Amino acid sequence: MKIDDIRAADICLEGYVHRTPLLTSSFLDDIAGKRVFVKPECLQHTGSFKFRGAWNAISKLTDAQRKQGVIAFSSGNHAQGIAMAATAVGAPSVIVMPSDAPRQKIDNTHALGGEVVLYDRVSEDRDQIGAKIASDRGLTLIKPFDNYDVIAGQGTVGLEIAREARAAGVDAASVLVPCGGGGLTAGIALALEAEAPDFRAIPVEPEGFDDVARSLASGKIERNARLSGSICDAIITPSPGELTFPILKRLCSPGLVVQEAECLHSMAAAFNCLKIVVEPGAAVALAAALFHAEQIDSDTVIAVVSGGNVDGPVFADALTRYA
Amino acid sequence: MKIDDIRAADICLEGYVHRTPLLTSSFLDDIAGKRVFVKPECLQHTGSFKFRGAWNAISKLTDAQRKQGVIAFSSGNHAQGIAMAATAVGAPSVIVMPSDAPRQKIDNTHALGGEVVLYDRVSEDRDQIGAKIASDRGLTLIKPFDNYDVIAGQGTVGLEIAREARAAGVDAASVLVPCGGGGLTAGIALALEAEAPDFRAIPVEPEGFDDVARSLASGKIERNARLSGSICDAIITPSPGELTFPILKRLCSPGLVVQEAECLHSMAAAFNCLKIVVEPGAAVALAAALFHAEQIDSDTVIAVVSGGNVDGPVFADALTRYA
Repeated sequence: MKIDDIRAADICLEGYVHRTPLLTSSFLDDIAGKRVFVKPECLQHTGSFKFRGAWNAISKLTDAQRKQGVIAFSSGNHAQGIAMAATAVGAPSVIVMPSDAPRQKIDNTHALGGEVVLYDRVSEDRDQIGAKIASDRGLTLIKPFDNYDVIAGQGTVGLEIAREARAAGVDAASVLVPCGGGGLTAGIALALEAEAPDFRAIPVEPEGFDDVARSLASGKIERNARLSGSICDAIITPSPGELTFPILKRLCSPGLVVQEAECLHSMAAAFNCLKIVVEPGAAVALAAALFHAEQIDSDTVIAVVSGGNVDGPVFADALTRYA
Repeated sequence: MKIDDIRAADICLEGYVHRTPLLTSSFLDDIAGKRVFVKPECLQHTGSFKFRGAWNAISKLTDAQRKQGVIAFSSGNHAQGIAMAATAVGAPSVIVMPSDAPRQKIDNTHALGGEVVLYDRVSEDRDQIGAKIASDRGLTLIKPFDNYDVIAGQGTVGLEIAREARAAGVDAASVLVPCGGGGLTAGIALALEAEAPDFRAIPVEPEGFDDVARSLASGKIERNARLSGSICDAIITPSPGELTFPILKRLCSPGLVVQEAECLHSMAAAFNCLKIVVEPGAAVALAAALFHAEQIDSDTVIAVVSGGNVDGPVFADALTRYA
């Protein structure tokens, strides 16, 4: 996988994605004691960065594949990205989602034209379910992170960060990225390596689901003990991917781990200071910037907010407790 | 006042404002039955478009004026814009605010370096209070809308809308603008007249505070019967301005009026579909697009979201009722 794949994805996405701006607030700088930029991918189509990789992967389908349709398994953000991109090109889409996914994610995936199939996150294996339906119906499986076209699409976030940070006069920074399977983090790390070599990608995870941090520490793929039970539903993937982990290992700094309460607090801070809606799993990077600044060397931090698909009651609860 | 004043403001603001993107959601299109674009000025510095006019006006101060300081009267958004811009150039700022302004607006104005003076919205006249303090301390008064430098700064929103809509392939549209004293609406209308003549600005107000709609209908400046008692605190100005009204009268279509409940519903819709935080007064234009589409001729609507400075409990209440 090369930087040219990400550059090609960037051209493929032009005119179809929202180019999200870097946001700032002096109030966030004060909390962190550092200069903080936020890349708000919650403002992306479908409410998360996942539309980028989905669009890039679906644009590579053959006519026959497009006609037959695609399948994806996802807790809800990849789901919506695939459903919207597939519908846009006239392809049927089947989305395999955990039954405990946020209501909004399930409803929106359906509304965007996806056929939703629910499974139990603890007792069933989404990979097996997805593979079987794909085989039965002749669908093309688009994995959420272990797919180079998907990684290249997510990497366009890194190209934009490099461009926008340069325009803002930033020469070096830690780029904190919410990390599930590692597609977004790997894509950003590759883009930064080529376009902003003094920027360093750092994966961030919630406590109890820190498979990437432990994998980076041990040098081999580690798994989470639990597969559910976090408010950070978007990023509680069992382990880093086969394709993503070698990239993370080569390019990323050690992973950071944050508490769920820090995520809720960061959601309230983003509400107050940036006027954006952040979902819990997408708040981990901002939480690391705000509450773990002492673990970050650089004076400038760019925190990726990877999505905003959170149910109203969860968001209202975060505001009630922390706004 | 000429388009060149707005173009000059645009250059003055370059590098200091967030260039906010036009956002879209197929879900909003479905509700409205039209193509809906949203210009999210809640993402602007200080959480509202007011920073634009404040920055432009403050950039025109002489060295002596800057040293002496500025004064503004505002329900909270102009307040924060002036406080931040003044602090950035090293000028002291006094901000006269109604005592019933949202807590967040008062706190943030103070945190941005403003000296806050509270007054009673019903029994006291903010213009008189502001004029007296300005005279006593030799401060330069920067009015919230009846100031051509402020109008020119707000007009840069219109330049951006023209540029971004053209890039999105839009040739004609109704541009719905939350309207208090009319600074933003007038600035946008002037920008569109020059840059996108097939776009038409339409002021939108909450029921009971529709002074601009009635003024446009009668052809002369009308006042609101009440001066408080709305959740739309940002735009319950007593009447359109002496400078803004002639511009509105010449360039705008008849005003639209929405219900408070429609504002809260629109805040929830923006939360669900766009992942942005909208304050009640800034939601009137989106509310008109979503719930009064039959009153709008064009197939394409661009709704300006003018700010996002809303207290947590108010926002949580909107989500509980409508999300």
